[in-house]
Amino acid sequence: MEYPSKLIEDAVNEVSKLPGIGKKTALRLVLHLVKENENRTLSLTESLNRLRTEIKFCKTCYNISDDDECGICRSHRRDKTILCVVEDCNDVMAIENTGQYTGTYHVLGGVISPMNGIGPSELKIESLITRLSQQQTEIKELILALSPTMEGDTTAFYINRKLKDLPIKVTAIARGISVGSELEYSDEITLGRSITGRTMFD
Amino acid sequence: MEYPSKLIEDAVNEVSKLPGIGKKTALRLVLHLVKENENRTLSLTESLNRLRTEIKFCKTCYNISDDDECGICRSHRRDKTILCVVEDCNDVMAIENTGQYTGTYHVLGGVISPMNGIGPSELKIESLITRLSQQQTEIKELILALSPTMEGDTTAFYINRKLKDLPIKVTAIARGISVGSELEYSDEITLGRSITGRTMFD
Repeated sequence: MEYPSKLIEDAVNEVSKLPGIGKKTALRLVLHLVKENENRTLSLTESLNRLRTEIKFCKTCYNISDDDECGICRSHRRDKTILCVVEDCNDVMAIENTGQYTGTYHVLGGVISPMNGIGPSELKIESLITRLSQQQTEIKELILALSPTMEGDTTAFYINRKLKDLPIKVTAIARGISVGSELEYSDEITLGRSITGRTMFD
Repeated sequence: MEYPSKLIEDAVNEVSKLPGIGKKTALRLVLHLVKENENRTLSLTESLNRLRTEIKFCKTCYNISDDDECGICRSHRRDKTILCVVEDCNDVMAIENTGQYTGTYHVLGGVISPMNGIGPSELKIESLITRLSQQQTEIKELILALSPTMEGDTTAFYINRKLKDLPIKVTAIARGISVGSELEYSDEITLGRSITGRTMFD
C-alpha cells in the first residue's frame, strides 16, 4: 500500500509490530490519532514511555510491581506456605481474578523453549530453587501452573526434577474438561486426562 | 480487573481509548511492550509523537502530506479537470489503490452529522466552493464519493445544492451489488438501486 506521508508509513510500521495488529488495523489506529487532539497522542506515548522506563519487578517473585517488592509478597494476609509457579505476569492476574488462591507466586518470565533459544538459564528457575532451599523458608507446597503445551510440560518436568531432594510437595493445576463445555467436543487427550485425574464427587 | 502496577493501569487506560481496542487487548499489548526491549517502545512512541507534531495537510486538497502541497496535487500526470470529494484520508488511499482514478481529490475531514455536533462549517466545504468558483479553475466534473449513510447522503445533498449555480457536472460513485457477492443476500435498498441505476451491458 502507498501512504500519503513518510510519517504515516513509519508509524504504521511501528504499530503493526505489535502482536495481533496488521497493517490495516495499524493504519486505522494511526489515522485515528491524526484526527484527534495532539494531547491525546502525547498522553498515550508518555504513559507508554513511563511504563517502559519506570516499571519495576518484585525482587522476590519477579511479578510487575510499583516498588521493589510487590503487594502480594508484602501482604501479611497471603499464605506464605504455598507458592504458585507461573509463566508470566498475565497468569498472576488471571489467577488473582479467580479469587481462589491466597498463596504467593513465582514468575518464571517464560517457559523452556529450545526452538526459540530459551533455556533454563534465561528464566527465573535458579532463583526459584534458591528461594525454596533457604533455611528459613516457610514454603511447604509448590503449585506448577504452567500451560499444557510441550514447552510448559518440559519446564514443569525440569523444575520438578531440580526439586526432588527438597522436602516440598509439588502439585500441578488440574487438567480436565472446561466448565460449561460439551463432553463430545473436547479432544481425546483432555478427556483422557479428566478420567485418569478424576476426583471424589462432592 | 486489578493491575499489579499503576503504570500498567495508566498504559492500559490510554491504549484502550484507541478504536476497536478493549481492556483485554490493551493489557496484552502493554505486557508485550514490557517484555520486549526498551528501545522498541521508544521507537514506537517517538514515531507516534513525530507523526502527530510534524504531520502536514495539503493546502489545496487537505490530504495528509509531507509538504505544503501533496504529491497528487503537485503531479502533472493527474487530470486536473476532475475532482473527487471524499470524507477522509483513508478514502483517498482506498481509491488510489484501485488504480482507476487519475483526477485530484478534496478531503472534507468528515461528514455533516448533527448528532455529533458536526455542521458544514466544521468541514472543508467552504474551501471546496472557493476552489470550484475560482476564475481560472480547470475543474469540469465533481465526483461525490461519500459513504452511503444518512450523514454521507446529507453531505452530498448539501454540497450539490451549494454548487447549483456553477457550471460543473456533479456525479456520484455507483451504488450497487458488490463484485463477488450473491444477489439473494444483498439488502433490498442496494438491490433496488442497482436496478434503477442499471448500465449498458458491455
